Amino acid sequence: MNLSSKLLEEAVNAFSSLPGIGKKTALRLALHLLTEDERHVQEFANSLTKMRKYIKFCRECFNISDSELCSICNSHRRDRSLVCVVEGIKDVMAIEGTGQYNGLYHVLGGVISPIEGISPSDLEINALMSRIDKGEIKEIIMAISPTIEGDTTIYYISKKLKDIKVSISTLARGISFGGELEYADELTLGRSIASRRPYGE
Amino acid sequence: MNLSSKLLEEAVNAFSSLPGIGKKTALRLALHLLTEDERHVQEFANSLTKMRKYIKFCRECFNISDSELCSICNSHRRDRSLVCVVEGIKDVMAIEGTGQYNGLYHVLGGVISPIEGISPSDLEINALMSRIDKGEIKEIIMAISPTIEGDTTIYYISKKLKDIKVSISTLARGISFGGELEYADELTLGRSIASRRPYGE
Repeated sequence: MNLSSKLLEEAVNAFSSLPGIGKKTALRLALHLLTEDERHVQEFANSLTKMRKYIKFCRECFNISDSELCSICNSHRRDRSLVCVVEGIKDVMAIEGTGQYNGLYHVLGGVISPIEGISPSDLEINALMSRIDKGEIKEIIMAISPTIEGDTTIYYISKKLKDIKVSISTLARGISFGGELEYADELTLGRSIASRRPYGE
Repeated sequence: MNLSSKLLEEAVNAFSSLPGIGKKTALRLALHLLTEDERHVQEFANSLTKMRKYIKFCRECFNISDSELCSICNSHRRDRSLVCVVEGIKDVMAIEGTGQYNGLYHVLGGVISPIEGISPSDLEINALMSRIDKGEIKEIIMAISPTIEGDTTIYYISKKLKDIKVSISTLARGISFGGELEYADELTLGRSIASRRPYGE
Protein backbone atom coordinates (compact mmCIF):
# COMPACT_ATOMS: atom_id res chain seq x y z
CA MET A 1 0.00 0.00 0.00
CA ASN A 2 1.41 3.39 -1.01
CA LEU A 3 0.45 5.77 1.79
CA SER A 4 2.19 8.86 0.32
CA SER A 5 3.18 9.88 3.85
CA LYS A 6 5.97 8.48 5.98
CA LEU A 7 4.25 9.74 9.14
CA LEU A 8 1.05 7.90 8.35
CA GLU A 9 3.03 4.81 7.41
CA GLU A 10 4.76 4.79 10.79
CA ALA A 11 1.45 5.09 12.63
CA VAL A 12 -0.03 2.27 10.53
CA ASN A 13 3.00 0.08 11.24
CA ALA A 14 2.68 0.82 14.96
CA PHE A 15 -0.98 -0.22 15.04
CA SER A 16 -0.39 -3.32 12.94
CA SER A 17 2.29 -4.49 15.39
CA LEU A 18 -0.55 -5.11 17.86
CA PRO A 19 -1.95 -8.64 18.01
CA GLY A 20 -4.99 -9.20 15.81
CA ILE A 21 -4.66 -5.87 13.98
CA GLY A 22 -3.91 -6.16 10.26
CA LYS A 23 -2.76 -3.49 7.82
CA LYS A 24 -6.27 -2.47 6.78
CA THR A 25 -7.57 -2.10 10.34
CA ALA A 26 -4.37 -0.26 11.27
CA LEU A 27 -4.97 2.21 8.45
CA ARG A 28 -8.56 2.73 9.57
CA LEU A 29 -7.43 3.42 13.14
CA ALA A 30 -4.67 5.81 12.03
CA LEU A 31 -7.04 7.73 9.74
CA HIS A 32 -9.51 7.94 12.62
CA LEU A 33 -6.87 9.54 14.85
CA LEU A 34 -6.17 12.04 12.06
CA THR A 35 -9.74 13.28 12.34
CA GLU A 36 -9.49 13.69 16.14
CA ASP A 37 -8.09 16.87 17.60
CA GLU A 38 -4.44 17.01 18.55
CA ARG A 39 -5.00 17.19 22.31
CA HIS A 40 -7.09 14.01 22.21
CA VAL A 41 -4.41 12.10 20.31
CA GLN A 42 -1.81 13.36 22.79
CA GLU A 43 -3.90 12.07 25.70
CA PHE A 44 -4.38 8.77 23.92
CA ALA A 45 -0.62 8.34 23.51
CA ASN A 46 0.10 9.50 27.06
CA SER A 47 -2.28 6.98 28.60
CA LEU A 48 -0.31 4.18 26.91
CA THR A 49 3.17 5.35 27.88
CA LYS A 50 2.07 6.22 31.42
CA MET A 51 0.55 2.78 31.86
CA ARG A 52 3.70 1.03 30.66
CA LYS A 53 5.95 3.27 32.75
CA TYR A 54 4.15 3.46 36.07
CA ILE A 55 2.14 0.28 36.40
CA LYS A 56 3.37 -2.00 39.17
CA PHE A 57 2.92 -5.63 40.06
CA CYS A 58 1.66 -6.31 43.58
CA ARG A 59 4.57 -7.60 45.67
CA GLU A 60 2.29 -10.17 47.35
CA CYS A 61 0.17 -11.65 44.56
CA PHE A 62 1.78 -10.22 41.35
CA ASN A 63 -1.52 -8.85 40.10
CA ILE A 64 -1.20 -5.50 38.32
CA SER A 65 -1.54 -2.57 40.65
CA ASP A 66 -0.97 1.17 40.89
CA SER A 67 0.81 0.79 44.22
CA GLU A 68 3.15 -1.67 45.96
CA LEU A 69 0.25 -3.74 47.23
CA CYS A 70 -2.81 -4.28 45.03
CA SER A 71 -6.30 -3.28 46.12
CA ILE A 72 -7.26 -6.92 46.71
CA CYS A 73 -4.26 -7.73 48.95
CA ASN A 74 -4.80 -4.43 50.70
CA SER A 75 -8.49 -5.00 51.41
CA HIS A 76 -9.68 -5.80 54.94
CA ARG A 77 -12.84 -7.48 53.70
CA ARG A 78 -11.03 -10.33 51.97
CA ASP A 79 -10.65 -13.84 53.39
CA ARG A 80 -6.89 -14.07 53.91
CA SER A 81 -6.92 -17.84 54.50
CA LEU A 82 -7.92 -18.53 50.89
CA VAL A 83 -5.62 -18.07 47.88
CA CYS A 84 -6.64 -18.63 44.28
CA VAL A 85 -3.63 -19.52 42.09
CA VAL A 86 -4.05 -18.34 38.48
CA GLU A 87 -1.99 -18.18 35.32
CA GLY A 88 -2.37 -14.51 34.47
CA ILE A 89 -3.93 -11.15 35.19
CA LYS A 90 -6.91 -11.82 32.90
CA ASP A 91 -7.92 -14.78 35.08
CA VAL A 92 -8.05 -12.50 38.13
CA MET A 93 -10.36 -10.19 36.20
CA ALA A 94 -12.56 -13.08 35.10
CA ILE A 95 -12.93 -14.46 38.64
CA GLU A 96 -13.47 -10.99 40.12
CA GLY A 97 -16.15 -10.52 37.47
CA THR A 98 -18.16 -13.41 38.93
CA GLY A 99 -18.48 -11.62 42.28
CA GLN A 100 -18.42 -15.08 43.92
CA TYR A 101 -14.91 -15.10 45.32
CA ASN A 102 -13.76 -13.33 48.43
CA GLY A 103 -10.22 -14.63 48.96
CA LEU A 104 -6.81 -13.49 47.72
CA TYR A 105 -4.98 -14.36 44.50
CA HIS A 106 -1.57 -15.47 43.38
CA VAL A 107 -0.62 -14.79 39.75
CA LEU A 108 1.98 -17.30 38.50
CA GLY A 109 2.74 -15.44 35.29
CA GLY A 110 2.28 -18.52 33.11
CA VAL A 111 2.34 -22.31 33.31
CA ILE A 112 5.20 -24.80 33.14
CA SER A 113 5.87 -25.52 29.47
CA PRO A 114 9.08 -27.30 28.42
CA ILE A 115 8.20 -26.67 24.75
CA GLU A 116 8.10 -22.91 25.24
CA GLY A 117 11.05 -23.08 27.64
CA ILE A 118 9.06 -22.01 30.70
CA SER A 119 10.43 -23.78 33.77
CA PRO A 120 9.09 -23.57 37.36
CA SER A 121 11.76 -20.99 38.20
CA ASP A 122 10.25 -18.60 35.60
CA LEU A 123 6.98 -18.58 37.51
CA GLU A 124 6.17 -17.05 40.90
CA ILE A 125 6.06 -20.45 42.61
CA ASN A 126 8.72 -19.67 45.21
CA ALA A 127 6.87 -16.51 46.15
CA LEU A 128 3.75 -18.64 46.64
CA MET A 129 5.70 -20.96 48.94
CA SER A 130 6.90 -18.03 51.06
CA ARG A 131 3.35 -16.75 51.34
CA ILE A 132 2.16 -20.18 52.50
CA ASP A 133 5.11 -20.49 54.91
CA LYS A 134 3.74 -17.54 56.85
CA GLY A 135 0.96 -19.86 58.05
CA GLU A 136 -2.07 -17.67 57.46
CA ILE A 137 -3.23 -19.51 54.33
CA LYS A 138 -5.49 -22.56 54.84
CA GLU A 139 -6.61 -23.39 51.30
CA ILE A 140 -5.14 -23.05 47.81
CA ILE A 141 -7.55 -23.09 44.85
CA MET A 142 -5.84 -24.08 41.60
CA ALA A 143 -7.78 -22.06 38.98
CA ILE A 144 -5.56 -23.09 36.08
CA SER A 145 -6.67 -24.11 32.57
CA PRO A 146 -7.10 -27.88 32.13
CA THR A 147 -4.34 -28.26 29.52
CA ILE A 148 -1.30 -30.53 29.69
CA GLU A 149 0.84 -27.56 30.79
CA GLY A 150 -1.77 -26.45 33.32
CA ASP A 151 -2.11 -29.93 34.80
CA THR A 152 1.70 -30.24 34.99
CA THR A 153 1.85 -26.96 36.89
CA ILE A 154 -0.87 -28.04 39.31
CA TYR A 155 0.94 -31.35 39.84
CA TYR A 156 4.28 -29.61 40.41
CA ILE A 157 2.85 -27.19 42.97
CA SER A 158 0.87 -29.91 44.77
CA LYS A 159 4.09 -31.99 45.08
CA LYS A 160 5.89 -29.03 46.62
CA LEU A 161 3.05 -28.55 49.09
CA LYS A 162 2.98 -32.24 50.08
CA ASP A 163 4.47 -31.74 53.54
CA ILE A 164 2.75 -28.44 54.27
CA LYS A 165 -0.58 -28.30 56.08
CA VAL A 166 -2.68 -26.56 53.46
CA SER A 167 -5.61 -28.00 51.51
CA ILE A 168 -5.54 -27.88 47.73
CA SER A 169 -8.64 -27.72 45.52
CA THR A 170 -9.31 -27.29 41.81
CA LEU A 171 -12.24 -25.74 39.99
CA ALA A 172 -15.26 -27.99 39.44
CA ARG A 173 -15.50 -29.37 35.92
CA GLY A 174 -18.83 -30.04 34.32
CA ILE A 175 -21.49 -28.90 31.88
CA SER A 176 -21.62 -25.11 31.65
CA PHE A 177 -24.83 -23.23 32.40
CA GLY A 178 -26.94 -22.97 29.28
CA GLY A 179 -24.81 -25.67 27.63
CA GLU A 180 -26.64 -28.33 25.64
CA LEU A 181 -25.83 -31.87 26.74
CA GLU A 182 -25.51 -33.29 23.25
CA TYR A 183 -22.85 -30.74 22.32
CA ALA A 184 -20.65 -31.25 25.39
CA ASP A 185 -17.37 -33.03 24.70
CA GLU A 186 -17.08 -36.59 26.01
CA LEU A 187 -14.37 -35.83 28.56
CA THR A 188 -16.37 -33.05 30.19
CA LEU A 189 -19.60 -35.05 30.10
CA GLY A 190 -17.89 -38.12 31.55
CA ARG A 191 -16.32 -36.06 34.31
CA SER A 192 -19.60 -34.37 35.12
CA ILE A 193 -21.28 -37.78 35.54
CA ALA A 194 -18.46 -39.06 37.76
CA SER A 195 -18.62 -35.89 39.88
CA ARG A 196 -22.45 -35.87 40.05
CA ARG A 197 -23.96 -34.13 43.05
CA PRO A 198 -27.11 -34.85 45.12
CA TYR A 199 -30.10 -32.99 43.67
CA GLY A 200 -30.93 -29.77 45.47
CA GLU A 201 -27.56 -29.38 47.16
CA MET B 1 -14.82 -4.98 34.53
CA ASN B 2 -12.71 -4.31 37.61
CA LEU B 3 -9.18 -3.71 36.35
CA SER B 4 -7.62 -3.02 39.78
CA SER B 5 -5.44 -0.35 38.15
CA LYS B 6 -6.42 3.16 37.11
CA LEU B 7 -3.50 3.30 34.67
CA LEU B 8 -4.62 0.15 32.89
CA GLU B 9 -8.19 1.39 32.88
CA GLU B 10 -7.15 4.62 31.15
CA ALA B 11 -5.23 2.73 28.48
CA VAL B 12 -8.20 0.41 27.93
CA ASN B 13 -10.54 3.37 27.62
CA ALA B 14 -8.18 5.00 25.14
CA PHE B 15 -8.10 1.91 22.92
CA SER B 16 -11.83 1.35 23.13
CA SER B 17 -12.45 4.92 21.92
CA LEU B 18 -11.17 3.75 18.52
CA PRO B 19 -13.78 2.64 15.97
CA GLY B 20 -14.45 -1.10 15.98
CA ILE B 21 -12.47 -1.75 19.17
CA GLY B 22 -14.58 -3.02 22.09
CA LYS B 23 -13.64 -3.30 25.76
CA LYS B 24 -12.33 -6.87 25.48
CA THR B 25 -10.11 -6.15 22.49
CA ALA B 26 -8.93 -2.93 24.16
CA LEU B 27 -7.91 -4.92 27.23
CA ARG B 28 -6.05 -7.43 25.07
CA LEU B 29 -4.16 -4.63 23.31
CA ALA B 30 -3.32 -2.85 26.58
CA LEU B 31 -2.07 -6.07 28.19
CA HIS B 32 0.02 -6.72 25.09
CA LEU B 33 1.70 -3.33 25.44
CA LEU B 34 2.42 -4.16 29.09
CA THR B 35 4.54 -7.10 27.93
CA GLU B 36 6.50 -4.95 25.47
CA ASP B 37 9.53 -3.03 26.64
CA GLU B 38 9.14 0.58 27.63
CA ARG B 39 11.09 2.03 24.71
CA HIS B 40 8.86 0.23 22.22
CA VAL B 41 5.69 1.58 23.84
CA GLN B 42 7.20 5.07 23.81
CA GLU B 43 7.93 4.77 20.08
CA PHE B 44 4.41 3.45 19.48
CA ALA B 45 2.90 6.48 21.23
CA ASN B 46 5.28 8.91 19.52
CA SER B 47 4.41 7.66 16.05
CA LEU B 48 0.76 8.52 16.72
CA THR B 49 1.31 11.99 18.15
CA LYS B 50 3.90 12.84 15.50
CA MET B 51 1.52 11.78 12.75
CA ARG B 52 -1.32 13.91 14.14
CA LYS B 53 0.94 16.89 14.73
CA TYR B 54 3.05 17.04 11.60
CA ILE B 55 0.98 15.49 8.84
CA LYS B 56 -0.09 17.98 6.19
CA PHE B 57 -2.69 18.08 3.49
CA CYS B 58 -1.38 18.82 0.00
CA ARG B 59 -2.31 22.40 -0.91
CA GLU B 60 -3.17 21.32 -4.47
CA CYS B 61 -5.13 18.08 -4.13
CA PHE B 62 -5.75 17.80 -0.31
CA ASN B 63 -4.28 14.32 -0.17
CA ILE B 64 -2.27 13.66 3.00
CA SER B 65 1.37 14.53 2.64
CA ASP B 66 4.54 15.11 4.65
CA SER B 67 5.21 18.36 2.78
CA GLU B 68 3.28 21.29 1.30
CA LEU B 69 2.82 19.47 -1.99
CA CYS B 70 2.17 15.71 -2.00
CA SER B 71 4.43 13.27 -3.86
CA ILE B 72 1.81 12.78 -6.58
CA CYS B 73 1.32 16.49 -7.32
CA ASN B 74 5.08 16.91 -7.14
CA SER B 75 5.86 14.11 -9.59
CA HIS B 76 7.04 14.92 -13.14
CA ARG B 77 5.86 11.59 -14.49
CA ARG B 78 2.18 12.27 -13.87
CA ASP B 79 -0.28 13.35 -16.55
CA ARG B 80 -1.24 16.84 -15.36
CA SER B 81 -4.20 17.13 -17.75
CA LEU B 82 -6.14 14.43 -15.90
CA VAL B 83 -7.67 14.87 -12.44
CA CYS B 84 -9.49 12.14 -10.54
CA VAL B 85 -11.99 13.60 -8.06
CA VAL B 86 -12.46 11.39 -4.99
CA GLU B 87 -14.28 11.53 -1.66
CA GLY B 88 -11.40 10.73 0.67
CA ILE B 89 -7.79 9.74 1.17
CA LYS B 90 -8.59 6.02 1.18
CA ASP B 91 -9.91 6.29 -2.38
CA VAL B 92 -6.57 7.72 -3.51
CA MET B 93 -4.83 4.74 -1.93
CA ALA B 94 -7.25 2.31 -3.58
CA ILE B 95 -6.77 3.83 -7.05
CA GLU B 96 -2.99 4.10 -6.61
CA GLY B 97 -3.06 0.44 -5.61
CA THR B 98 -4.36 -0.53 -9.06
CA GLY B 99 -1.26 0.89 -10.74
CA GLN B 100 -3.53 1.82 -13.69
CA TYR B 101 -3.84 5.56 -13.16
CA ASN B 102 -1.25 8.14 -14.02
CA GLY B 103 -3.04 11.45 -13.49
CA LEU B 104 -3.49 13.73 -10.50
CA TYR B 105 -6.15 13.65 -7.78
CA HIS B 106 -8.49 16.01 -6.00
CA VAL B 107 -9.76 14.95 -2.57
CA LEU B 108 -13.14 16.55 -1.79
CA GLY B 109 -13.17 15.53 1.86
CA GLY B 110 -16.66 14.02 1.68
CA VAL B 111 -19.83 14.22 -0.39
CA ILE B 112 -22.79 16.58 -0.27
CA SER B 113 -25.20 15.27 2.35
CA PRO B 114 -28.04 17.49 3.63
CA ILE B 115 -28.90 14.83 6.26
CA GLU B 116 -25.42 14.99 7.78
CA GLY B 117 -25.29 18.74 7.25
CA ILE B 118 -22.49 18.62 4.66
CA SER B 119 -23.00 21.37 2.11
CA PRO B 120 -20.89 22.08 -0.99
CA SER B 121 -18.99 24.78 0.90
CA ASP B 122 -17.71 22.15 3.35
CA LEU B 123 -15.98 20.34 0.49
CA GLU B 124 -12.96 21.37 -1.56
CA ILE B 125 -15.09 22.18 -4.60
CA ASN B 126 -13.95 25.80 -4.92
CA ALA B 127 -10.33 24.66 -4.82
CA LEU B 128 -11.14 22.26 -7.66
CA MET B 129 -12.63 25.15 -9.66
CA SER B 130 -9.48 27.25 -9.19
CA ARG B 131 -7.33 24.33 -10.33
CA ILE B 132 -9.47 23.94 -13.47
CA ASP B 133 -9.42 27.70 -14.08
CA LYS B 134 -5.66 27.51 -14.60
CA GLY B 135 -6.43 25.75 -17.91
CA GLU B 136 -4.02 22.82 -17.70
CA ILE B 137 -6.70 20.24 -16.86
CA LYS B 138 -8.48 18.57 -19.79
CA GLU B 139 -10.46 15.80 -18.11
CA ILE B 140 -12.09 15.25 -14.74
CA ILE B 141 -12.81 11.68 -13.64
CA MET B 142 -15.53 11.48 -11.01
CA ALA B 143 -14.48 8.47 -8.91
CA ILE B 144 -17.23 8.87 -6.35
CA SER B 145 -19.35 6.12 -4.78
CA PRO B 146 -22.68 5.54 -6.60
CA THR B 147 -24.87 6.56 -3.66
CA ILE B 148 -27.54 9.27 -3.59
CA GLU B 149 -25.07 11.65 -1.92
CA GLY B 150 -22.31 10.72 -4.36
CA ASP B 151 -24.54 11.23 -7.38
CA THR B 152 -25.72 14.58 -5.98
CA THR B 153 -22.11 15.66 -5.62
CA ILE B 154 -21.25 14.59 -9.17
CA TYR B 155 -24.34 16.46 -10.46
CA TYR B 156 -23.44 19.60 -8.48
CA ILE B 157 -19.87 19.66 -9.77
CA SER B 158 -20.89 18.92 -13.35
CA LYS B 159 -23.38 21.83 -13.21
CA LYS B 160 -20.62 24.16 -12.03
CA LEU B 161 -18.38 23.01 -14.87
CA LYS B 162 -21.11 23.46 -17.53
CA ASP B 163 -19.52 26.51 -19.15
CA ILE B 164 -15.93 25.39 -18.77
CA LYS B 165 -14.17 23.47 -21.50
CA VAL B 166 -13.27 20.30 -19.61
CA SER B 167 -14.59 16.79 -20.20
CA ILE B 168 -16.18 14.90 -17.34
CA SER B 169 -16.20 11.12 -17.02
CA THR B 170 -17.31 8.63 -14.39
CA LEU B 171 -16.02 5.17 -13.56
CA ALA B 172 -17.41 2.32 -15.67
CA ARG B 173 -20.09 0.30 -13.92
CA GLY B 174 -20.50 -3.39 -14.58
CA ILE B 175 -19.91 -6.93 -13.40
CA SER B 176 -16.74 -7.18 -11.34
CA PHE B 177 -13.96 -9.56 -12.36
CA GLY B 178 -14.56 -13.00 -10.90
CA GLY B 179 -18.14 -12.02 -10.10
CA GLU B 180 -20.84 -14.59 -10.83
CA LEU B 181 -23.58 -13.28 -13.08
CA GLU B 182 -26.44 -14.81 -11.13
CA TYR B 183 -25.37 -13.03 -7.94
CA ALA B 184 -24.99 -9.56 -9.47
CA ASP B 185 -27.69 -7.09 -8.44
CA GLU B 186 -30.24 -6.14 -11.09
CA LEU B 187 -29.16 -2.51 -11.37
CA THR B 188 -25.53 -3.40 -12.03
CA LEU B 189 -26.43 -6.20 -14.43
CA GLY B 190 -28.87 -3.95 -16.30
CA ARG B 191 -26.28 -1.20 -16.57
CA SER B 192 -23.61 -3.60 -17.77
CA ILE B 193 -25.91 -4.79 -20.58
CA ALA B 194 -26.75 -1.23 -21.62
CA SER B 195 -23.05 -0.31 -21.61
CA ARG B 196 -21.95 -3.48 -23.42
CA ARG B 197 -18.72 -3.26 -25.37
CA PRO B 198 -17.59 -4.87 -28.66
CA TYR B 199 -15.91 -8.22 -28.00
CA GLY B 200 -12.12 -8.05 -28.01
CA GLU B 201 -11.90 -4.30 -27.45
